[in-house]
Amino acid sequence: MKIDLNADLGEGFGAYEYGEDERLFDVVSSANIACGFHAGDPHTMRATVEACVSRGVAIGAHPGVPDRLGFGRRELAISPREAADFILYQVGALSGFARAAGGRLRHVKLHGAFYHMASKDANLAEEVVQAVRSLDPGLLLYGLPGSCLEAAAAKFGIGYAAEGFTDRAYLPDGQLVSRRLPGAVLERSEDVVRQALALAGQGRFQTLCVHGDTPQAAELARQIAEKLQQEGFEIAAPHANETKSVE
Amino acid sequence: MKIDLNADLGEGFGAYEYGEDERLFDVVSSANIACGFHAGDPHTMRATVEACVSRGVAIGAHPGVPDRLGFGRRELAISPREAADFILYQVGALSGFARAAGGRLRHVKLHGAFYHMASKDANLAEEVVQAVRSLDPGLLLYGLPGSCLEAAAAKFGIGYAAEGFTDRAYLPDGQLVSRRLPGAVLERSEDVVRQALALAGQGRFQTLCVHGDTPQAAELARQIAEKLQQEGFEIAAPHANETKSVE
Amino acid sequence: MKIDLNADLGEGFGAYEYGEDERLFDVVSSANIACGFHAGDPHTMRATVEACVSRGVAIGAHPGVPDRLGFGRRELAISPREAADFILYQVGALSGFARAAGGRLRHVKLHGAFYHMASKDANLAEEVVQAVRSLDPGLLLYGLPGSCLEAAAAKFGIGYAAEGFTDRAYLPDGQLVSRRLPGAVLERSEDVVRQALALAGQGRFQTLCVHGDTPQAAELARQIAEKLQQEGFEIAAPHANETKSVE
Amino acid sequence: MKIDLNADLGEGFGAYEYGEDERLFDVVSSANIACGFHAGDPHTMRATVEACVSRGVAIGAHPGVPDRLGFGRRELAISPREAADFILYQVGALSGFARAAGGRLRHVKLHGAFYHMASKDANLAEEVVQAVRSLDPGLLLYGLPGSCLEAAAAKFGIGYAAEGFTDRAYLPDGQLVSRRLPGAVLERSEDVVRQALALAGQGRFQTLCVHGDTPQAAELARQIAEKLQQEGFEIAAPHANETKSVE
Repeated sequence: MKIDLNADLGEGFGAYEYGEDERLFDVVSSANIACGFHAGDPHTMRATVEACVSRGVAIGAHPGVPDRLGFGRRELAISPREAADFILYQVGALSGFARAAGGRLRHVKLHGAFYHMASKDANLAEEVVQAVRSLDPGLLLYGLPGSCLEAAAAKFGIGYAAEGFTDRAYLPDGQLVSRRLPGAVLERSEDVVRQALALAGQGRFQTLCVHGDTPQAAELARQIAEKLQQEGFEIAAPHANETKSVE
Repeated sequence: MKIDLNADLGEGFGAYEYGEDERLFDVVSSANIACGFHAGDPHTMRATVEACVSRGVAIGAHPGVPDRLGFGRRELAISPREAADFILYQVGALSGFARAAGGRLRHVKLHGAFYHMASKDANLAEEVVQAVRSLDPGLLLYGLPGSCLEAAAAKFGIGYAAEGFTDRAYLPDGQLVSRRLPGAVLERSEDVVRQALALAGQGRFQTLCVHGDTPQAAELARQIAEKLQQEGFEIAAPHANETKSVE
Repeated sequence: MKIDLNADLGEGFGAYEYGEDERLFDVVSSANIACGFHAGDPHTMRATVEACVSRGVAIGAHPGVPDRLGFGRRELAISPREAADFILYQVGALSGFARAAGGRLRHVKLHGAFYHMASKDANLAEEVVQAVRSLDPGLLLYGLPGSCLEAAAAKFGIGYAAEGFTDRAYLPDGQLVSRRLPGAVLERSEDVVRQALALAGQGRFQTLCVHGDTPQAAELARQIAEKLQQEGFEIAAPHANETKSVE
Repeated sequence: MKIDLNADLGEGFGAYEYGEDERLFDVVSSANIACGFHAGDPHTMRATVEACVSRGVAIGAHPGVPDRLGFGRRELAISPREAADFILYQVGALSGFARAAGGRLRHVKLHGAFYHMASKDANLAEEVVQAVRSLDPGLLLYGLPGSCLEAAAAKFGIGYAAEGFTDRAYLPDGQLVSRRLPGAVLERSEDVVRQALALAGQGRFQTLCVHGDTPQAAELARQIAEKLQQEGFEIAAPHANETKSVE
């Protein structure tokens, strides 16, 4: 039994620090590294990629919309072609750091509003997938199961790792409970750890998202990893040939 | 007899156009493409790289300091390490577009203040060269002959193409006449064309810089190319094995 | 009979020029000056404000969403509070240039996506209006008649100048024909001039928008002004006490 | 006996927090508020200005060079005219927030590299001073005693508050010990508190700078304030008629 734990890393900028990166490197198997549009900068990208190489964590690009002030969380009305160009730019930049550090880019996970827009807009999702494939057809995409992005990955033959959220409640049909409803976000640590175990055991997800925005979040991520290992899960990044689209 | 003609291209941004790119593509053998720090944006980078591929012009990265307001022309007190990280980011990003377009990045030419800083600061030049080499040891650097950048390229075994300026006067020792002195910049078209021919014939330069900021500049670049060809020069991008450092 | 002609000015940025500002200064009575978020920069703002003072053109702020790459034309999902803060920042900055030049800020016209969002979102419109009023209750807002922005201006007692578009077709009820329908944008110069005259004569509009993106547009603006004057209109900026909300 | 304590506040940006603003508001009499070029954003500016109003802390603008990535600490080769335009833009923007909050802008303190450049470059200092004066001749400038900025303030009749640094060693002639020499920065809390008391007692300084980058720094600032009050100093912002240039 194998499961990936991924986290957003390298989200500082210049003099600003963000998140508990150091502690998360001991926990996760995949790093989604900010690429300078919503967060991150050249220095942070290099340092984060080098840490991935030395710690054996899979290097992933985490491209966002160009909205540093909004941390990439606000929807921006971009065209599919603009989306593709933002991918080429940011993933290309991160690839440079990976190459310079003697590593290799393994996956791409969209950030914030970009992630949501590509989940529900088929045209945008298809342009994103084709941009990723034009850079390297061996790259994996991480995203929501059942989304437009997954459909696009299947259509164009790119590996796709379905992502689960350990701190979110799910409906019986596998969809996330809307954040506008009570109980959508799990508040108690024990519920989150239990949810992580449940999601890992379902077989529907190849990767689970954990957070490191606060020391508490990083500690919770550590507990999740510990519990998963106790229950017999190997925490490891997915490989292209283990994912659905390529099967 | 062979000489390269290079020009800065893709320096528009968003709604802003800049320069006579379309006309220069018929003239030059090497394009230095802005990478989004001093000018350029993802859409412009993609379009410019695709034009290079379809017209057979060598694709080069043209990284600048992060000063879009100043068009990268103002010196910014960056450390050698910051310089290297700016190279990795921008050259990596342009490489992504080259790969996506089915092309290949061939050279790197620093822009504006970055070019000048790396010409005279040995530490900065060495970090820049090592960053370029870590991305691809086959990349060529374009720059001033006799500069710190050339010395660094030689030290670390990166190909270097010495660049001449067709609109600038030179001293007998091969140095540029300072812009603060009268006659430093050649004003008349016939002087510029004559200078281009003289520089190409010396054998000291592998590449000559032409401009396309105005329709007049682009027309002058065309005349230079025409005259060089009439005099028997082949206009073509340099190859790594023809440059000094690698000999 | 009096009518205002307004145009967007000062939309260059750094090395980039944009629009035929010089020619429009002879034509318009109101300038909407970009404030550095979607276009414009400190140097351009100062120069444009100084030109307004010397030519007797009313100084207006033209704030946009923070999206320079998209020229402020892409909708960005900002909260009403963010909208208000963007107004305070940009209008405050332009006020500084007005004061330094011995002039006075007269009006505010939102740009692009910001204009459209405030036309149809009542909460956002009310926060915008209150931000403008907190800076100076004597400022005028320019905007669509019948929009949420006009309602908010009326509610909070800010002067409002209803704006007409000389190159757009109108429905019998006074609404703009949607850009998605054929004939929405008037293509022929004579139609635009005739439309300007019709709109000025209706009494529904205090200000008409003209464009200067191209030399043709600037020439057309000149023709509109000439025709209006021939027909007896005085081209002059509105005063607060002539506008609806304050009556 | 009266002395001002000033601190840089509002240096967060978007999702990024920076410094112990909340704790410093209990300690300082003057706030230098970042204006969006090196740090700060519209939301942070509004919140910080409102806190100044409610706590009775003097509102000051803290303009920097446009280098958010470098936090305004890297020298950028700007012309005196560019410097003046950066002042008009940033101080104008902050004035807008002050007006909206029912407060009034009282002083201007340049940030980081801008502060240093204006201390040693007379042309730049004179343009800065004239820009400040054109906004409001009653504004105070805070800066190094004996600097080009002080000379420019005297020349153009702007109030100037000489600033001392509580954590820096001084030479017998009143100049700061260069940071490159050992002992330039006081490391021990007791030395800093003693230095604050000594500087306040000399009468050479109207304002002392304290820091809040870390919880330790904010605690030290509190101790400085407490000790000064114990020794009979009133901690209060300077008034224009108490400063040298205007006497």
